[in-house]
Parts: sequence; C-alpha cells; structure tokens
Amino acid sequence: MTVAKIRLCVDQALGARQSVTLTEAQAHYLFGVMREGAGARILAFNGRDGEWLCEVTEAGRRKGSLACREHVRVQDAPSDLWLLFAPVKKARTDFIVEKAVEMGVARILPVMTDFTNAERFRRDKALAHVREAAEQCGRLTIPEVTEPAPLARVLAGWSPGRRILWADEERAGEGSARDVLAGAAPGPWAILIGPEGGFSAAERDCLRAAPFVTPVALGPRILRAETAAVALLALWQAHLGDWAAA
Amino acid sequence: MTVAKIRLCVDQALGARQSVTLTEAQAHYLFGVMREGAGARILAFNGRDGEWLCEVTEAGRRKGSLACREHVRVQDAPSDLWLLFAPVKKARTDFIVEKAVEMGVARILPVMTDFTNAERFRRDKALAHVREAAEQCGRLTIPEVTEPAPLARVLAGWSPGRRILWADEERAGEGSARDVLAGAAPGPWAILIGPEGGFSAAERDCLRAAPFVTPVALGPRILRAETAAVALLALWQAHLGDWAAA
Repeated sequence: MTVAKIRLCVDQALGARQSVTLTEAQAHYLFGVMREGAGARILAFNGRDGEWLCEVTEAGRRKGSLACREHVRVQDAPSDLWLLFAPVKKARTDFIVEKAVEMGVARILPVMTDFTNAERFRRDKALAHVREAAEQCGRLTIPEVTEPAPLARVLAGWSPGRRILWADEERAGEGSARDVLAGAAPGPWAILIGPEGGFSAAERDCLRAAPFVTPVALGPRILRAETAAVALLALWQAHLGDWAAA
Repeated sequence: MTVAKIRLCVDQALGARQSVTLTEAQAHYLFGVMREGAGARILAFNGRDGEWLCEVTEAGRRKGSLACREHVRVQDAPSDLWLLFAPVKKARTDFIVEKAVEMGVARILPVMTDFTNAERFRRDKALAHVREAAEQCGRLTIPEVTEPAPLARVLAGWSPGRRILWADEERAGEGSARDVLAGAAPGPWAILIGPEGGFSAAERDCLRAAPFVTPVALGPRILRAETAAVALLALWQAHLGDWAAA
C-alpha cells in the first residue's frame, strides 16, 4: 500500500489538504532519532480520521510539520472489550498496558484491590505508552485509560449489560476459558485480571455475587498478571473479537 | 494442602528420608532474602520426583539443607509442546523464556533467522530464568533450552511427526488460529514465532514448503514477538493442551 514505515499518533485533525504541526518530541524522534527529513513519507492517525499518508513539509530540530497526501485506511472501531487490572510492579504494569493496546482493548481500567501493591499508577505515563504501542501495532484507535479506582466502587457502578470475564486463579479444574467463551454471546465485555496474591475473600464474594461476572480457569499453572492478561485477551479475540473473522 | 509458599527447583534426588543440600544462592535467598530459618517448610521439585514438602534442617549464611517430609504432588509430564523463537532484545527475550515456562512449554528452542538481532542468546541465563519461572508458576517439570541454531538447519533436521504452528504475520485475513486449532489433532506440536521484522523471503519459502508447518493468523494488528508467543501458546493450550481439561 505504501512504503512509509513510521506511524505517528497525532492529536490534530487529518484530512485532505490538512497540515499537522508536530510536537517537540515527535520532531526529535522523526528528525533526530530516525534521521528523516523534508519529503519523507509518514503515516499518521488520531483515532478519528483513519490513517493518512503524510509528507514532511518542515523538519527542524524541535519542530516540524506534515501535510496529508492520501487517505490510506478508513477509521474503524475497536472490539468492545475493556481490561480491568490491578497495577503490579512498574515494568509489568507498563507491559500490561502495552499488551492491552496490541490485543485491541478499547478501554484500560486500573483497579485498586485489597492486595494491590500500593505503588502509584501513573496515568500520564500509561497514556504515553498507549500511544506508542498504538503507533507500533498498527491500530487506528487509541484506547482510553481511566483513573485508578477501587474495585468495589467499579463493580458497584458497573453497567450490567457489559459482562466481565474474570481470570479466577482459584478456579483451576472448573470451567475452562475456552468452554466459557465458546458458549458466550458477542457484545460488550471486559476482562478482569487480579493482583499478584489474588483477591481478598471479601472481593471474591463480591465478584461471585455479581450477576455480570463469569469466572474462568486458565489452566493448572499460576500465571503472572501480564501473562493471564495476554492469554485471556487472546482467547476472547479468537472467539468473540476481531481475530475470529477469517 | 500445605502452607509452604516457597518453592525451590533442586538438582538432587527427592524422596522419603532424602536430604537436600542447598546451593549458596538458594541459602542466600531462603535465609537472607526471605528470612526463613531452621524448621521452615519449603516445597522442592527437581523435574523427576514430584513435589516434596521439606523442612529446613540447617540454615547458614551460605549453606543449608532440607529434609524431605511429605510427598505432596506426583510427578507429571508437560504438554508435548515446543517453542521456537528468534531471540529479540534482551528484556523481551527474557520475557519470552519466562512466559514459555508459565505457559507449559516442554522445550525452548532459540532459532537464528536472517533478520534476527545479532545479540547473543545466553543459554546459561535462560536456564536460570527457566528454573525461577518454574518455581514461581508451580510446575513440576523444567523445560529444556537448546543451544541457538539457524532456522534452516532446525527445519532440515525436523522430525515431521511434530507439527509446527507458525504465527505468520503476513497471513492476516486468511486462516484464524482458532479455526486451525479447532480442526487440529492432538500430538507433538511446536509453535514458531518470528523475529521483529519477520522472516526473509527465503525463510518464508522454506516454511511454506515444509509439509509439517501450518501458518496461522493472529488478528489484524502487528504483535510483538512476546505477545504473539503468549497468545498462540494460550490458544494451543486451550484447544489441545492442559487448559482444555475442564
């Protein structure tokens, strides 16, 4: 379709005859790190206007601009899939956020649980990771990231039309994720991954009582949070999401 | 079953009335880092004798020993699943090795490809990661790690009774991994994950010509190597492996 390899996530509008002003960080990346210059072809997306092949029209040390040349992909919508997860140690939290983007999640919801590591979740950093991962994995949408909120409050305000698939580590030997997903209806879903150390007894009671929560087992081994997240997102996408389409 | 939380992967035999001499690193971990002492209960496994509840009988700064007290789990065998992957940057390679262990792979085979980052794969470091991940995820088996070998040589010497499921990034829109796995027979399998940048044209021809290789698509987005590995291992385990058993 095009030889442009670099993709940029921008905030500005994209369209015929539109120009885009680069941020300082984008100019540094494009012209300092990647050694591109005026005339280079770049792909740009903003989550609303599809993907545009752009040409670099100005290349400075700390600034630059693009001109939209060709509309190469029409805007799409992500799978209606959210990820709820309890932030773990920093590197693994970053990893979960990156993987959620690659796996096509529409909204990322950090939840605080009784056993969540108190380390603060930095939403600004997560948003930067989200944009970078979206550029890298080729998606046209930019997942939302909510402010961290206690699990109990999230569940209390939950809209029951969206089902939650809960990776329940105490459920080994009961319903396998594949069996549950094979019988599941399409529609709005969320995936819930617990903290290292699992959920507290009170949280488990709360989850088991919620009519919109379905616990599933992910095999006989203990999975780290980021492994469970990728695995369950893959099974969901394969059965109900955009991996199912042949 | 037991309140022992710490699991140690040991080399020595385990059995009734057996004692185990700890390595210096294990003694440091148990007594220095985890603050355990004589009388503490530890789980030990060696990949052959199942899992044993042991008691610390000697706790020194750089040495220690355990006595086997109770045979708590019978030795099992891993799923007959291998992972072939092209080493990528160090942190992500470590990650792939860790995830292969959690996902129940029996053998990890690093392969060198035309576009593999030349960075050296350190088998000794990988083996240490494997043991640590096996301790953490509760498995009783210790995956093998082979020396890195060129993909072409690995394919030339391949035993055709073991099928290879190839995460083919150019196959988006063709056969989905779920459809292929739903129709696949159990038996020996391997999963092949390519390097960042994909396989060369010559490698692709070679893979497409091999009768034991089945290419599959993993959705519309570009996945990093470690994401593709976890996702395809999850789909395999869910359909043909030890996640399928309800």
